[in-house]
Amino acid sequence: MPRLAFGGDYNPDQWDRDVWREDVRLMRRAGVNLVSLGIFSWSWIEPDQDRFDFSGLDEVIALLHEGGVSVDLATPSASPPPWFSEAYPDALFVDHLGRRLGHGSRQGFCPSSPAYRRRTAVVAARLARRYGEHPAVVMWHVGNELGGYNAHCHCPTTAEAFRTWLRARHGDLDGLNRAWGTAFWSQRYSAWSQVRVPGSAPGRLNPAQQLDHYRFASDELLACYRWERDIIRRRSPGRPVTTNFMAGTFKWVDYCRWGPEVDLVTNDHYLTAADPEAHTGLAFSADLSRGIAGGRPWLLMEHSTSAVQWQPRNTAKRPGEMLRNSLAHIARGSDGACFFQWRQSDSGVEKWHSAMLPHGGESTRIWQEVVQLGAALGRIGEVAGSTVAGEVALLWDYENYWALEMGGRPSVDLGYAAEAEAWHREVWRQGVVCDVVPATASTDVLSRYRLLLLPAHYLATPETVRALTAYVHAGGHLVVGPFSGLVDRDDRLHPGPYPGALRELLGLTVDEFLPLRENTTVTLDNGLTGRVWAEAVHPADPVGAVRTAVDARFADGPAAGGPALLSRRAGTGLVRYAATRFEGASLRALLAGALDGAGVGSTAPGAGDGVEVVRRRAQDGRSWLFVLNHTEDAAEVVCGGVELLSDTAVAGRLTVGPGGVAVVRESGPPDAG
Amino acid sequence: MPRLAFGGDYNPDQWDRDVWREDVRLMRRAGVNLVSLGIFSWSWIEPDQDRFDFSGLDEVIALLHEGGVSVDLATPSASPPPWFSEAYPDALFVDHLGRRLGHGSRQGFCPSSPAYRRRTAVVAARLARRYGEHPAVVMWHVGNELGGYNAHCHCPTTAEAFRTWLRARHGDLDGLNRAWGTAFWSQRYSAWSQVRVPGSAPGRLNPAQQLDHYRFASDELLACYRWERDIIRRRSPGRPVTTNFMAGTFKWVDYCRWGPEVDLVTNDHYLTAADPEAHTGLAFSADLSRGIAGGRPWLLMEHSTSAVQWQPRNTAKRPGEMLRNSLAHIARGSDGACFFQWRQSDSGVEKWHSAMLPHGGESTRIWQEVVQLGAALGRIGEVAGSTVAGEVALLWDYENYWALEMGGRPSVDLGYAAEAEAWHREVWRQGVVCDVVPATASTDVLSRYRLLLLPAHYLATPETVRALTAYVHAGGHLVVGPFSGLVDRDDRLHPGPYPGALRELLGLTVDEFLPLRENTTVTLDNGLTGRVWAEAVHPADPVGAVRTAVDARFADGPAAGGPALLSRRAGTGLVRYAATRFEGASLRALLAGALDGAGVGSTAPGAGDGVEVVRRRAQDGRSWLFVLNHTEDAAEVVCGGVELLSDTAVAGRLTVGPGGVAVVRESGPPDAG
Amino acid sequence: MPRLAFGGDYNPDQWDRDVWREDVRLMRRAGVNLVSLGIFSWSWIEPDQDRFDFSGLDEVIALLHEGGVSVDLATPSASPPPWFSEAYPDALFVDHLGRRLGHGSRQGFCPSSPAYRRRTAVVAARLARRYGEHPAVVMWHVGNELGGYNAHCHCPTTAEAFRTWLRARHGDLDGLNRAWGTAFWSQRYSAWSQVRVPGSAPGRLNPAQQLDHYRFASDELLACYRWERDIIRRRSPGRPVTTNFMAGTFKWVDYCRWGPEVDLVTNDHYLTAADPEAHTGLAFSADLSRGIAGGRPWLLMEHSTSAVQWQPRNTAKRPGEMLRNSLAHIARGSDGACFFQWRQSDSGVEKWHSAMLPHGGESTRIWQEVVQLGAALGRIGEVAGSTVAGEVALLWDYENYWALEMGGRPSVDLGYAAEAEAWHREVWRQGVVCDVVPATASTDVLSRYRLLLLPAHYLATPETVRALTAYVHAGGHLVVGPFSGLVDRDDRLHPGPYPGALRELLGLTVDEFLPLRENTTVTLDNGLTGRVWAEAVHPADPVGAVRTAVDARFADGPAAGGPALLSRRAGTGLVRYAATRFEGASLRALLAGALDGAGVGSTAPGAGDGVEVVRRRAQDGRSWLFVLNHTEDAAEVVCGGVELLSDTAVAGRLTVGPGGVAVVRESGPPDAG
Repeated sequence: MPRLAFGGDYNPDQWDRDVWREDVRLMRRAGVNLVSLGIFSWSWIEPDQDRFDFSGLDEVIALLHEGGVSVDLATPSASPPPWFSEAYPDALFVDHLGRRLGHGSRQGFCPSSPAYRRRTAVVAARLARRYGEHPAVVMWHVGNELGGYNAHCHCPTTAEAFRTWLRARHGDLDGLNRAWGTAFWSQRYSAWSQVRVPGSAPGRLNPAQQLDHYRFASDELLACYRWERDIIRRRSPGRPVTTNFMAGTFKWVDYCRWGPEVDLVTNDHYLTAADPEAHTGLAFSADLSRGIAGGRPWLLMEHSTSAVQWQPRNTAKRPGEMLRNSLAHIARGSDGACFFQWRQSDSGVEKWHSAMLPHGGESTRIWQEVVQLGAALGRIGEVAGSTVAGEVALLWDYENYWALEMGGRPSVDLGYAAEAEAWHREVWRQGVVCDVVPATASTDVLSRYRLLLLPAHYLATPETVRALTAYVHAGGHLVVGPFSGLVDRDDRLHPGPYPGALRELLGLTVDEFLPLRENTTVTLDNGLTGRVWAEAVHPADPVGAVRTAVDARFADGPAAGGPALLSRRAGTGLVRYAATRFEGASLRALLAGALDGAGVGSTAPGAGDGVEVVRRRAQDGRSWLFVLNHTEDAAEVVCGGVELLSDTAVAGRLTVGPGGVAVVRESGPPDAG
Repeated sequence: MPRLAFGGDYNPDQWDRDVWREDVRLMRRAGVNLVSLGIFSWSWIEPDQDRFDFSGLDEVIALLHEGGVSVDLATPSASPPPWFSEAYPDALFVDHLGRRLGHGSRQGFCPSSPAYRRRTAVVAARLARRYGEHPAVVMWHVGNELGGYNAHCHCPTTAEAFRTWLRARHGDLDGLNRAWGTAFWSQRYSAWSQVRVPGSAPGRLNPAQQLDHYRFASDELLACYRWERDIIRRRSPGRPVTTNFMAGTFKWVDYCRWGPEVDLVTNDHYLTAADPEAHTGLAFSADLSRGIAGGRPWLLMEHSTSAVQWQPRNTAKRPGEMLRNSLAHIARGSDGACFFQWRQSDSGVEKWHSAMLPHGGESTRIWQEVVQLGAALGRIGEVAGSTVAGEVALLWDYENYWALEMGGRPSVDLGYAAEAEAWHREVWRQGVVCDVVPATASTDVLSRYRLLLLPAHYLATPETVRALTAYVHAGGHLVVGPFSGLVDRDDRLHPGPYPGALRELLGLTVDEFLPLRENTTVTLDNGLTGRVWAEAVHPADPVGAVRTAVDARFADGPAAGGPALLSRRAGTGLVRYAATRFEGASLRALLAGALDGAGVGSTAPGAGDGVEVVRRRAQDGRSWLFVLNHTEDAAEVVCGGVELLSDTAVAGRLTVGPGGVAVVRESGPPDAG
Repeated sequence: MPRLAFGGDYNPDQWDRDVWREDVRLMRRAGVNLVSLGIFSWSWIEPDQDRFDFSGLDEVIALLHEGGVSVDLATPSASPPPWFSEAYPDALFVDHLGRRLGHGSRQGFCPSSPAYRRRTAVVAARLARRYGEHPAVVMWHVGNELGGYNAHCHCPTTAEAFRTWLRARHGDLDGLNRAWGTAFWSQRYSAWSQVRVPGSAPGRLNPAQQLDHYRFASDELLACYRWERDIIRRRSPGRPVTTNFMAGTFKWVDYCRWGPEVDLVTNDHYLTAADPEAHTGLAFSADLSRGIAGGRPWLLMEHSTSAVQWQPRNTAKRPGEMLRNSLAHIARGSDGACFFQWRQSDSGVEKWHSAMLPHGGESTRIWQEVVQLGAALGRIGEVAGSTVAGEVALLWDYENYWALEMGGRPSVDLGYAAEAEAWHREVWRQGVVCDVVPATASTDVLSRYRLLLLPAHYLATPETVRALTAYVHAGGHLVVGPFSGLVDRDDRLHPGPYPGALRELLGLTVDEFLPLRENTTVTLDNGLTGRVWAEAVHPADPVGAVRTAVDARFADGPAAGGPALLSRRAGTGLVRYAATRFEGASLRALLAGALDGAGVGSTAPGAGDGVEVVRRRAQDGRSWLFVLNHTEDAAEVVCGGVELLSDTAVAGRLTVGPGGVAVVRESGPPDAG
């Protein structure tokens, strides 16, 4: 494995043989050291069932090896060829309308299909046997973005698999009926054969059934991965096996559960073109990737050199933006920066997706910046293996994502992912690194933080509540957003007054949730403004033994006069509760107060808005400060050491030009941050 | 039956046995006297086909009886259990896309299914036999909100039932071809087997076929009700049987035809959370319920103590709002106020729907207001059986609702229900009670009114035209909105110039309809503003024998210079015609003029905007004035008698605080209104 | 055939026998000379399979013949009767969701169905045998608006037909795999049986497959037409056979390929009611019809006397507007003006669609204007057979329409048809006639123009590039819009830097496309404003041999400082390139400059905005100036001759009142234009 990986998806099957040599020549020129090879090569290497042809792949791997480019070899399971559809029509994906879909795109299979598993096993075993010990092959890439299009299949095979999964989870039908609350609306099951994948019914569906279905579907995809991984591991010892995640707002896979199953967390990230501050979404995705990886280095497997082609308006990256994006990922723990894809396709769905080598070839701006990026990564290779650790963490949980956004909640305007991203962004804006950590993290992990953020934690397990309580009592600070603590794993209300499982820790009760009409606000007596939501809060626990401080009250709206912000000391720690939903400046003020109260300061105080500063640290004590200037003005950062990109000494003060970047190997003892 | 019913849906199957005793204790505390029991209990009492278990229901009914709570016993036909779907897959609902839906929600059945009818008969008969003469059981509740999710089924069974229905209506294929105008687009049927439920065709569907399908589907649901009702009646003599309506803008059931089929009209109503003046929609629903009941008392079977969970943003009711809502229904003829539901569910789809006993229990605001409401109803029990009679009525007709909003009309902006609600609201704002009466009402019924409103009566039958003509000639006043009088029951144009069947009565002809572009207006020379619509009108009948007065002309727009408002004396009455569509202040001005002209005044002149005043009268001459102050200022109403809620005398002047309510047993002879 | 055709669709099967005589009487009164008879008559003349009844049609044709009204006799294939659906369920249309649709509307058939072709052959042969030499029958009308609802069928028969079509196009599977770029996403086909109609897959579909599917579907519909045409031709010699087009923005048929297959191009056009300047869309449709007809006269087969019923808000035409619309079509080459339909239906889907004889009969404004129109056409009959020839042409291409709007492009805001219409409208506004010519037109055809417009020519064939290059080198002027010249017929990138196939002609390279965020703009240093799009352009070919003039630069936005407008002399011609997308005033300025540069002036300089002036010329040198005043002020046009509608001499100056029209047979040598 290279120190910092640099390269991209490589699809030689789209090109003639003479292009392959040119590719390797240009990869060398750009400093590419890793390619993800053959992700969609199934119909190339197995053009008809059981007829294999590895001659092309043999040749390409040999050429890459000669050229010093390492291979992250893919199993081609992301896109079964047309012959597969014809041979196994029952293995095709069935959508929520009950339509059996077909080939002509990608991922057209049912993740629970035995035929699919049989055929992916055959091809994975062949690949692993043939290349498992090839010196060029340094990593394995199972499938691609699992579940991207086919997470929730509605075929009979899936229904059967769901029943099997449910038996394992709930034991017997009584357990299932209890968990799903089937007394409601006369849904009691009297035989397993009656149990279905939720999907087509005339009204709203049972929420507990839906939650289990989300869990099941994520597990089935994970099973697809593990199935191939185990086949490869037996035949390719010592090579890490992974599959590329889409950590961020991709909803259908519980990556927190998947993290331990991959040898290296790899992630794909694409900017939201409509958002002028999309780099904060990038930071969220990177921080979540690191959280899933348990704080260890991970790898950015895909991003784009410029525009993508699948958004409504695919803006291009501006000069310098790719470099900033790549270094932002590395700053946040990625040991490299890879792209989709090496050479821009000249046909097919993604030909308008940018690549390292554009249609226009070597004369293009993009190619020149790719070459510069390769050089830059060469200069900062020493950061590989170092880690990033924030002092504040946002807790992230896919089960909450599913449960809160299921419908039938008080307001459609309170979303799980949007809240998490908004809170993370406002911490980012204050120059503070905010880890994104699975909500199931151990007390040990939580105890590393001065401050924890829990924006909309609707579903609260006893384990999480215990861990948070211990964390606060031991001195931690915690901020809890509205509509938290209410239901258990089966979307069943925790007993007693709201906020249920968090009532005791927060030391308050909520009489009623008071969602606001669209585009209306509430004002607090401290000047902040809330949107979407208010609550009628009593600043005491139900028996009145504990009284909680009211830090601000609603000045108007449905909860006028009542507490809007509360805080309570518990043990040596502090917990804050927001009884409304903030955004923008008000959210920033809330979080600024919490950061301040917890003693968390900016990594680079005074660096200014839009200047991203992140520190990586090695176990041997070395540290590197990454400075990414997203603004159109020069930025100044207080630091000392050697700026690696320019190989110049920095003595106390570093100026980074508009849009510029710097990576400083720090000399002195770093400040807090 | 209690005097004023107070209670809610009760679903003991969702709770453990020990909760049942607690429930009855709290019901007594709140003054609950009626619960609708077991609406979704099918899988509880018949957990598997033909295996019945009534032990729980026996116990609950006994407990309620002991506690003095009467039972409105439900048949559980609203939600067949999973075993039903498994045993009778052909009985499942098929949606407009042709998908056979399944269980997991509710109402997943085809209303025309013989298997469904067989199984509902079995369970209804069992229930009626067992509890039909139980002293606690005072009423029967068949199913629930029939057709809410499954009104238009597209399965083969439904198609066959549709053909049977059509044979009865049209006799033979010639009759069908004539009625449906199948000469158009080559749709002549040459065999009954070719006739389909409208639904899936590449272009727009035959409107007469669609109209018949609406009628058929409403009749099929009615047949489901009658089927169960007749089974119960035989076994439970003397108890009223009903099913709960959704009178208001629910479109799929012709409640005007259903009214005579129930022993007591019962209605469900929920506020539109997005509308800050949703109480006017409440008044419309209540007035329509009364109209369906032929002016007799009816019962509010469901409303909510606070928020629901199925709207996008489910605002909670503010303190006092539930009381105002409940009394508003009672003021408009409901003999009680019941809720969905007694105890808030802790799981399932509706757990975020408010209830009488919230998750938070007895300490909550809602519970306290429920207790107050129970007490209030106790104090005003004497109003039970009295009635409400407005001097103005809006004519309402489901066939017009279906026909006007079918598509292929001049403008999508002219809706039937929206117009009716808007006209009703503007009368409400003038302090006048506006009855909502089936358009098929007899001349006798119509003759009780000084003024009739006909906002958008596109489909006009000879019977209605005759009745309206007689009404006007006998001295009544009538206001007709645009695009009225045009087609017959089969959506076929009445012959001759527009407005067809109303041409003679109105004494004018319309040369052409002139819909406006979106968000544009027309101005009248009297300052009013029209939207959506204009017409080119000649103020004379086609032969010029009758000339009609032009009260205002269009000052601009496509009909500039032509008549916009016309009126004509016919017999001793007066008919007005609006050749444009008004809203807001202009609509208010139109209706104010009409009310004034008809000599209809406010029930409480000077009470002010947003103060709702309604009078109920007993046959013995007593009367009660309900005053509901929806504003944030105190209101003053001229009246005299005894205010029942506070048990204080009122001499001439009653002040009702912001958001407050009063019910005055009037002493003197009431004013007009 | 009449000189100028005047009449409409005639559906006597919707009416009783006694109405037919009245119809003919009124047709004579209005001057109707042609009716399209029996378009939806299948269930009338073949009420059951193989049972024919021509008695009604015999009688109607005889009546029309007596009345001097010619017949454009329709085959009834647009709407198979219910018996057809019952007998041939496999012939029914299957939509993109895989639903087999049914009758109850129209066009419910699969265009590839053998059963459909068999039955249309039977009825067409019967009709042609019976009436093929009837003196009243002067033309044949095959089906109606082919493909309007059923262009893309997804049934197995269609899939088989698609495979047959593909074999013919691509030869073997290797050819198909190459053309479709199936190496991408592992889509290589190993057997023909695997090839499907694109439609249902979990992600985006192969664009080359989609393009071929568009072509195939258009060809299948054409085959339907040719199939009937050839049957008729054998039995009705000498009568032109046609089918009515929907030239304009109707996307599913490649009318450029269909033009040569009809004996007379006929077109249907309806105004977009929401657009206050819908007459410019009319001009586009008419100019495209003429382009499809190769510049020869064509016939307006359907438009409306007033409102339609299928748009959201169906505004009526204002007094005089129908006359202006009809003459606008004739001005642009139509030899007549026909309508849907003669007598307004009293039932069915289209009863609210206006007609020549409205519901209100002879007293209506519409009827009176119809009579006037008939008289007007009588007065200008001499223009029949003359032609219109602009000096500027916009190139139009259905394959570009399909390819550009397929999705997966840089911006959804760049549409093909919208751009073409916008450019055409801005030329219209400058008083210049803009021909709309198939992009496949020969160099000969192109050489007739001073200026060619190519707004968004994404897909560029070698033939087109050769023709354009020759055109420019021979002195022509050409304006090319952004995102042009990029892909070949299979949506595969032309090799080398952008703009691919047009790089050499334009003498520039585009480094990258830079779409803008929604609702943002770029400013040019000449004051113009661009939207949606920018490009990074180098004003030189890749080797720098050619340098192209930069006429304006981007002042801001992602391409700030770079060229925005460029021009290059090539041979004796000039080519301009716009590297952004203009609209409104900026687009007008761009085109004004181009017109001016090419020496193209207004047909009637000084006539003013909104005054449409078009000249028709006969081969014998006569010419007629049509003047259509769309404004509310009088307009003055310099011309001389005889105004035919009023039969008055014009000496130098003609005044046309607000909304008025004039047709001047010119006396002197016309000015340029």
